[in-house]
Amino acid sequence: MTLILGNEDVDGLLTMKDVIAALEPAYRNIAEGRAVAGGRADLVSETPYDSGARYWLKMASGVVPDLEVGTIRINSDIVTWPRDGNKVRRVKAPLAPGNRWVGLVLLFSSATGEPLAIFPDGAIQRLRVAGSTGLSIKHMAREDSETLGLLGTGWQAGAHLEAALAVRPIKRARVYSPNAEHRATFATTMSERHGIEVIAADQPEDAVRGADIVVTATNSMENIFFRDWVEPGMHLATIRDGEFETAVLDRVDLLAIHDPGNMGDDHILAPEGLTIPDLGKEIAEVDGFDQILKAPTLAKVVAGQAPARDNADQVTCFLNYHGLGFQFTATGAAFYAKAVEAGRGHELPTDWFTEDVHP
Amino acid sequence: MTLILGNEDVDGLLTMKDVIAALEPAYRNIAEGRAVAGGRADLVSETPYDSGARYWLKMASGVVPDLEVGTIRINSDIVTWPRDGNKVRRVKAPLAPGNRWVGLVLLFSSATGEPLAIFPDGAIQRLRVAGSTGLSIKHMAREDSETLGLLGTGWQAGAHLEAALAVRPIKRARVYSPNAEHRATFATTMSERHGIEVIAADQPEDAVRGADIVVTATNSMENIFFRDWVEPGMHLATIRDGEFETAVLDRVDLLAIHDPGNMGDDHILAPEGLTIPDLGKEIAEVDGFDQILKAPTLAKVVAGQAPARDNADQVTCFLNYHGLGFQFTATGAAFYAKAVEAGRGHELPTDWFTEDVHP
Repeated sequence: MTLILGNEDVDGLLTMKDVIAALEPAYRNIAEGRAVAGGRADLVSETPYDSGARYWLKMASGVVPDLEVGTIRINSDIVTWPRDGNKVRRVKAPLAPGNRWVGLVLLFSSATGEPLAIFPDGAIQRLRVAGSTGLSIKHMAREDSETLGLLGTGWQAGAHLEAALAVRPIKRARVYSPNAEHRATFATTMSERHGIEVIAADQPEDAVRGADIVVTATNSMENIFFRDWVEPGMHLATIRDGEFETAVLDRVDLLAIHDPGNMGDDHILAPEGLTIPDLGKEIAEVDGFDQILKAPTLAKVVAGQAPARDNADQVTCFLNYHGLGFQFTATGAAFYAKAVEAGRGHELPTDWFTEDVHP
Repeated sequence: MTLILGNEDVDGLLTMKDVIAALEPAYRNIAEGRAVAGGRADLVSETPYDSGARYWLKMASGVVPDLEVGTIRINSDIVTWPRDGNKVRRVKAPLAPGNRWVGLVLLFSSATGEPLAIFPDGAIQRLRVAGSTGLSIKHMAREDSETLGLLGTGWQAGAHLEAALAVRPIKRARVYSPNAEHRATFATTMSERHGIEVIAADQPEDAVRGADIVVTATNSMENIFFRDWVEPGMHLATIRDGEFETAVLDRVDLLAIHDPGNMGDDHILAPEGLTIPDLGKEIAEVDGFDQILKAPTLAKVVAGQAPARDNADQVTCFLNYHGLGFQFTATGAAFYAKAVEAGRGHELPTDWFTEDVHP
């Protein structure tokens, strides 16, 4: 049977602990040179939807031997760039029937080749981001970290709080968002959910001052965390380039990144002459790019192949953007195992997705 | 609705004429710089199946604006290299339940992003090869070509006969295979099916001598067509590098290929140190590689952007190997349209393959 699963199957089934437990062997397999990550490509073309919009077919893949699976993540988007005052925003238009987006993960067995499951990428996508930050905290932050400073109150901010809780004895979190109501609601909700103290800070500095771990998990296109706010012993993590002021990196003793080879836009394939408003922006926006390129990958950190924190004053930092396909492989494998156990999803005959004609 | 289709839906539904009619605008879109082909990647890793076997996750993709679709072709194979006397053969082991292989095409709308259909690649894979040869015949062979010389009697040979018939007034075919029974059966079957004269030749030279079009469509790993057999005015096509003796190219006036950028093995991603018996073989085996790299693509030929045949004595040639993902896009789009018209396949809610979570 091949399982068709939904985002709703992820919720309440896959915990942050499961995600971190699945990511860890995947990162280790990468560092050991046994896992394979890649196949990242974006095909961009005209779309009949609108002359200013683009059809964007994106893929990334990974194989993790210790989990005995391979995955391909596919996004099939209509990307638009509406004007918002002086700025142009990048918006994926949900144009599939029912105003929906199209992001799929196909999970295959590396033992038989068979398709084990097909599921949307949304819930998994979010979990793998926070899960990776969690892994960075586990391997880079001080063991006795008790205070989390959080900038952001969205879904990712909540997931990052969970990730920190999963790997460190967090006793309190201080959270800031420009919207007072958002930060108050977040504080109340999360405090109740996790039984820890969560304080809504009136200023971002108040959220991060004295924190053992600082996480920025926002949609901000502008710097929101600055050099002067860095304190000895902090572990820092960001999910988006540009959240940190470039100069923050000057204060970092141990930096980790995903993959230097994954930061450019050479995976974007488009007809010559086709305008793409934000092409080339991605790489240009990565502040301190030279320094970043020299940093070890999180995989090396996890596998103990990179220098580890050796005192309580060092500042450690993980740049959790430009993630990799194998994160979906690991998170997807964990999700699949849980879904099978719980009897979730639509079971379809595997024959529908295999063939007796030699391909 | 998202359609799940099978190889059996292709048979009897999609004709060679349909395939050529779909491939032509796709090749034209490529030449115009409007279609996008790429995203080719092979991820190779260990497999729990056997220490000498490899898990091989392969993808290729394409977007064809005039057909308003994009596709990803995915192969999830366990590749083995059994010894066969002195030779090592490459064999994909059918290890999915029911001893089946795993090759899938996902077809997306470039207008809405939605997944229109999922189907196996087997039947489509075969048709696109012969269809591309047909397109080369249409644009390169003499208009008055009446005689086809065919080396090979397998499925591809039959499809190539159909492809030639679809675009030229073929009156007779001469066919050779080392197996006398195979060539006799092929001659009888094809003669009945197409109402033309099909002659089983005792020697390969007899099959190709005096032919207007020569097609080699075999599994041979050795040269089977030679320089001395080339005659003025012939159009030549081969589906596998190595079928033609290198020196054949010296006699060719107008050569066309798929894509020079698609002939190496730099799309193969594998852990360092993982042995892959035939890695690097692909490119080494391409005879006359330098000359080939300078040849125009079939896309340019189809779009009239490359020199065309201007007399009846010129020898034209199409090297129909290392094909491209957009062939699946074109052939898949034609298949989907026919399947919808005929009410074929399993209809699944598109919601199962889309999401309301922003990816």
